[in-house]
Amino acid sequence: MTVRIAVAGASGYAGGELLRLLLAHPEVEIGALTAGGNAGTALAEHQPHLLPLADRVLAATTAEVLAGHDVVFLALPHGASAEIAAQLGPDVLVVDCGADHRLESAQDWARWYGGEHAGHWPYGLPELPGGRDALRGATRVAVPGCYPTVSSLALAPAVAAGLVEDEVTVVAASGTSGAGRSSKPHLIGSEVMGSLSAYGVGGAHRHTPEITQNLSKVAGRRVAVSFTPVLAPLPRGILATCTAKLVSAQDPRAVYEKAYADEPFVHLLPEGRWPTTAAVLASNAVQLQVTVDTDLDRLVVVAAIDNLTKGTAGAAVQSMNIALGLPETLGLSTAGVAP
Amino acid sequence: MTVRIAVAGASGYAGGELLRLLLAHPEVEIGALTAGGNAGTALAEHQPHLLPLADRVLAATTAEVLAGHDVVFLALPHGASAEIAAQLGPDVLVVDCGADHRLESAQDWARWYGGEHAGHWPYGLPELPGGRDALRGATRVAVPGCYPTVSSLALAPAVAAGLVEDEVTVVAASGTSGAGRSSKPHLIGSEVMGSLSAYGVGGAHRHTPEITQNLSKVAGRRVAVSFTPVLAPLPRGILATCTAKLVSAQDPRAVYEKAYADEPFVHLLPEGRWPTTAAVLASNAVQLQVTVDTDLDRLVVVAAIDNLTKGTAGAAVQSMNIALGLPETLGLSTAGVAP
Amino acid sequence: MTVRIAVAGASGYAGGELLRLLLAHPEVEIGALTAGGNAGTALAEHQPHLLPLADRVLAATTAEVLAGHDVVFLALPHGASAEIAAQLGPDVLVVDCGADHRLESAQDWARWYGGEHAGHWPYGLPELPGGRDALRGATRVAVPGCYPTVSSLALAPAVAAGLVEDEVTVVAASGTSGAGRSSKPHLIGSEVMGSLSAYGVGGAHRHTPEITQNLSKVAGRRVAVSFTPVLAPLPRGILATCTAKLVSAQDPRAVYEKAYADEPFVHLLPEGRWPTTAAVLASNAVQLQVTVDTDLDRLVVVAAIDNLTKGTAGAAVQSMNIALGLPETLGLSTAGVAP
Amino acid sequence: MTVRIAVAGASGYAGGELLRLLLAHPEVEIGALTAGGNAGTALAEHQPHLLPLADRVLAATTAEVLAGHDVVFLALPHGASAEIAAQLGPDVLVVDCGADHRLESAQDWARWYGGEHAGHWPYGLPELPGGRDALRGATRVAVPGCYPTVSSLALAPAVAAGLVEDEVTVVAASGTSGAGRSSKPHLIGSEVMGSLSAYGVGGAHRHTPEITQNLSKVAGRRVAVSFTPVLAPLPRGILATCTAKLVSAQDPRAVYEKAYADEPFVHLLPEGRWPTTAAVLASNAVQLQVTVDTDLDRLVVVAAIDNLTKGTAGAAVQSMNIALGLPETLGLSTAGVAP
Repeated sequence: MTVRIAVAGASGYAGGELLRLLLAHPEVEIGALTAGGNAGTALAEHQPHLLPLADRVLAATTAEVLAGHDVVFLALPHGASAEIAAQLGPDVLVVDCGADHRLESAQDWARWYGGEHAGHWPYGLPELPGGRDALRGATRVAVPGCYPTVSSLALAPAVAAGLVEDEVTVVAASGTSGAGRSSKPHLIGSEVMGSLSAYGVGGAHRHTPEITQNLSKVAGRRVAVSFTPVLAPLPRGILATCTAKLVSAQDPRAVYEKAYADEPFVHLLPEGRWPTTAAVLASNAVQLQVTVDTDLDRLVVVAAIDNLTKGTAGAAVQSMNIALGLPETLGLSTAGVAP
Repeated sequence: MTVRIAVAGASGYAGGELLRLLLAHPEVEIGALTAGGNAGTALAEHQPHLLPLADRVLAATTAEVLAGHDVVFLALPHGASAEIAAQLGPDVLVVDCGADHRLESAQDWARWYGGEHAGHWPYGLPELPGGRDALRGATRVAVPGCYPTVSSLALAPAVAAGLVEDEVTVVAASGTSGAGRSSKPHLIGSEVMGSLSAYGVGGAHRHTPEITQNLSKVAGRRVAVSFTPVLAPLPRGILATCTAKLVSAQDPRAVYEKAYADEPFVHLLPEGRWPTTAAVLASNAVQLQVTVDTDLDRLVVVAAIDNLTKGTAGAAVQSMNIALGLPETLGLSTAGVAP
Repeated sequence: MTVRIAVAGASGYAGGELLRLLLAHPEVEIGALTAGGNAGTALAEHQPHLLPLADRVLAATTAEVLAGHDVVFLALPHGASAEIAAQLGPDVLVVDCGADHRLESAQDWARWYGGEHAGHWPYGLPELPGGRDALRGATRVAVPGCYPTVSSLALAPAVAAGLVEDEVTVVAASGTSGAGRSSKPHLIGSEVMGSLSAYGVGGAHRHTPEITQNLSKVAGRRVAVSFTPVLAPLPRGILATCTAKLVSAQDPRAVYEKAYADEPFVHLLPEGRWPTTAAVLASNAVQLQVTVDTDLDRLVVVAAIDNLTKGTAGAAVQSMNIALGLPETLGLSTAGVAP
Repeated sequence: MTVRIAVAGASGYAGGELLRLLLAHPEVEIGALTAGGNAGTALAEHQPHLLPLADRVLAATTAEVLAGHDVVFLALPHGASAEIAAQLGPDVLVVDCGADHRLESAQDWARWYGGEHAGHWPYGLPELPGGRDALRGATRVAVPGCYPTVSSLALAPAVAAGLVEDEVTVVAASGTSGAGRSSKPHLIGSEVMGSLSAYGVGGAHRHTPEITQNLSKVAGRRVAVSFTPVLAPLPRGILATCTAKLVSAQDPRAVYEKAYADEPFVHLLPEGRWPTTAAVLASNAVQLQVTVDTDLDRLVVVAAIDNLTKGTAGAAVQSMNIALGLPETLGLSTAGVAP
């Protein structure tokens, strides 16, 4: 089986990571590559690391160009996916790396993003309860945000098992690629190197409702999420520290072991070892560890992912594999690049 | 007035930062510089950035060498201060940058550090309620740990005013110099660059009881602290994200404005701006911001310091100034080095 | 003596470093701060590290605003200095951190920068032969470029003494702040962290004619310069590796020792120790070392500076001190910030 | 064909990168993993990024353990390879990532490394003239050093074609992993982040004779090499700037195009684009660009590699493929990881 794919938004970071992974995928043939403002330029100008595609020129992002592929990956700015997707046939698998189809609540969409809600699609986080089933045979997939991926996987077993109170705190430090290939003043190199900074504090980050949605669905009741993102001086990687008050006598480690025993990409570390983002760089793995602060009866879970791989492009490929009935791990690896 | 000072442990990071600040202090004359294993070597081998002291040779850390100074700064490994201090006259001001004399509870000391408790000294965090008075005329000062400094200043106004519940969470990301000039495998450059990692999770870090002690004293009741440190890829700087459940109708911003209105080194940022460690690099400033996550009624305070300056050596100089009756800000600056 | 100064271009990196140094200068009072597009905004939005000036608002860069100061520092884009300077009185000391008045040859200016040559001013590199005399009493000063500063100081003693052939090679790696607070795509954080890149190769960088001018004047004959800049993942600092064929039997070390014996800011390291940019961070020092590759009879000089301090703002203050007859080192330090 | 391989020195950086590549190699089965001081510990303690091998325990490095494999990769400290290799059968392919068998001259070995010369093996740089032939069917391979790889590939076409004089200069900045998993004081994170430093200056680095050997063989006459390595703040990557005086009227670009037209891993960039180490991260690619400084008639070549991949482990796998008659690019990629 050869799957012919197209990538819309191929000049950005998510698009580049998609192509890096798809180049190594044994069942994929890379078709059209499109861009917005960069249409007409060589891919190599934007993705000089993708030598096998150095000769490719970016087309404009239109339905005509994207037609005729089995899978279309959308790596577009928020708000741009729905219109394109509507023009692609219902049999084409459309995998949206943007936010447009992640939130189920139109009210949440209006509050956090503004504008009309495009509806929600099957959610590309198969490790959540029922997540895998929802993706089988799907022709539309909403890839989760990077912070929601790591935070939800870190806390889902605890809320599902009733281990903790319905209010959780997440402080997640991220590399700068999460902000995209953006030239905002606070993202230029001289500013970010050697600096840690907070942003989107006090529930102001758009990923808050997505984490809340995921954990509430898992719990079967509303889980409130205090989420603070931190910008850290590295290109890739998220380390999330998640805490919540324990309300159960169950052994947390046993709960997590059971939850992720059969997951190919989620790895609970042996006791005494802690996650680092370096260990998951460029891999689709999630590394996590759980412990209890016995002085406070508080669960602490720390989890690491690569925001561009498991946090975006890897999840997109994993979801494609599931949707198409391919082996879920095809073209993906749990071996990172270190040091 | 010229103050003749000595630095024990001059080849380490805390010692180097002390010397950098003391070189710029208008009332200080730098006397003996001592070291342990590095005794007999040139200071320039260890501190090549301190050109004005390039010709100095390190002596052994003995009471004889340290005698005859007005102030002796101790930047020694934990457990080494008490013995030296006992041999220095009661009129000498001894400023201990190590942990030996920070904890008031012998039981806490035994649990977190082990060995015999050396007792506790006036605590070098003048911005805490009553802190300044305790330092005036003191001849012994325990300089706070770097995490306790930033965490305590971030949360003290809230717990003092009864704004929040008695359980707080702190996730603080730090640069690597906080671990000292150590060559442990996880601290070598290839490992730390490009990586975020957790350590001392679940209340396992020795700074936990110190933060608890500070906040509990301020509150007048036990405050429980969930503290998670994160190692981030930068040499200096700590960014602490602190949250706690609101239990009062007071305006948090007004509480913080009032608490720090007259503090020369603690700066509450205007609304809408958030702290960065870059902005406090090499300065004695604390920059902080407060907000409320209204969905959860949760206070969020983010604060930044330079762990080596306000977090160690700057606090030591500030404490010396107060103890000796010099202007508190002498030789210290709130202007950082950026970008 | 109190010198009242103004800074035009206060929202950029050079302007910020000027202010950091001038805040610590005992004879300076900081007057007007101006900007171009940022006029009307608070300085704190652009320079959050300069807390002592947090309340300042930036004025527009006009002659009216800049009038009435003893010294005006220009930290403006290339081409903008001449017009402003012409409107400032001849008695005002104008210190130009831009390139406009560095090159003596109108032909060089036309080739490398384009447009009309604004003429040349006394050159702010006092450590070159005759350099100090040219600055005494000057009312106009052209601050050297950062690469020319470190390269010229690294090679001047060798070419002055006839140690080497008239063709030299310089490969200099620099931190990103040398490119200014620019949001060009290749300067955003995700691109520069973890990457080394070349640019301006093959004599294409505008600093090439300035290095050539300096060394040729020192030599009394044309010295050809092969200059390659490299962009490295750090905010500040330049490390220059300079080589040239030896043609003399003199002892290179003796030549350098003699050349810089009385210089307060240029430090020839003891044999066996090599410069690092970390050791000069935020200081006005130049650290250098010389050796001979005996297999090739080739001189190798390695030198380090902070591009924003000795490479720009520190040189500006040093030049001001000399021009005004103040002690040359006033407000400047050879102690860096490390680690 | 399934090749059963063993890695001696699996807990180091070269060993880890070998395993990362070999995990993705379709014809390889990973057998014994050995270590020196780390024998008996889990691989995961040292290589937490290699999740597929998380359960492996390191054996001691003995001939018994290594026996019974088709290929044995040695990633051992200098001087340790010869003894082990002698105990492995002549039919086993031994690929030595260390320096022991690189130098052809016993005199050079004695001068630069000391001790007895172990002899020289076929050299794993197939892109040099005749290099590929020397590797076909070989049972012993000496993998080149990282600096020699990038420098030789950057200059070989020029010296082979007689483009340049017989004296060349190379200044190469490298990430810290080139020094191995070493805890020397100058390699700890707080020291290397934010710093550029020189070392091994003046022909003092052990890679100098290896570059000289390579270029001299290519030229058919002695080529003198002025080589200066620079330590830069990134984990991986080397950017080499190479210059030499032009002595021929040939078009340099045409020379390089011809030399590397058929090479799968060496990529001459289109005019106007310059190499970055980010673009080759974790790939086996070499990206290079050539130009002429016409003011000096000097050739400038800039080349980038990943020191651990093409500079070590990738070259080892590439050499194995050639030696065993497998497709040369099997298991290797020219797509890097960026940003």
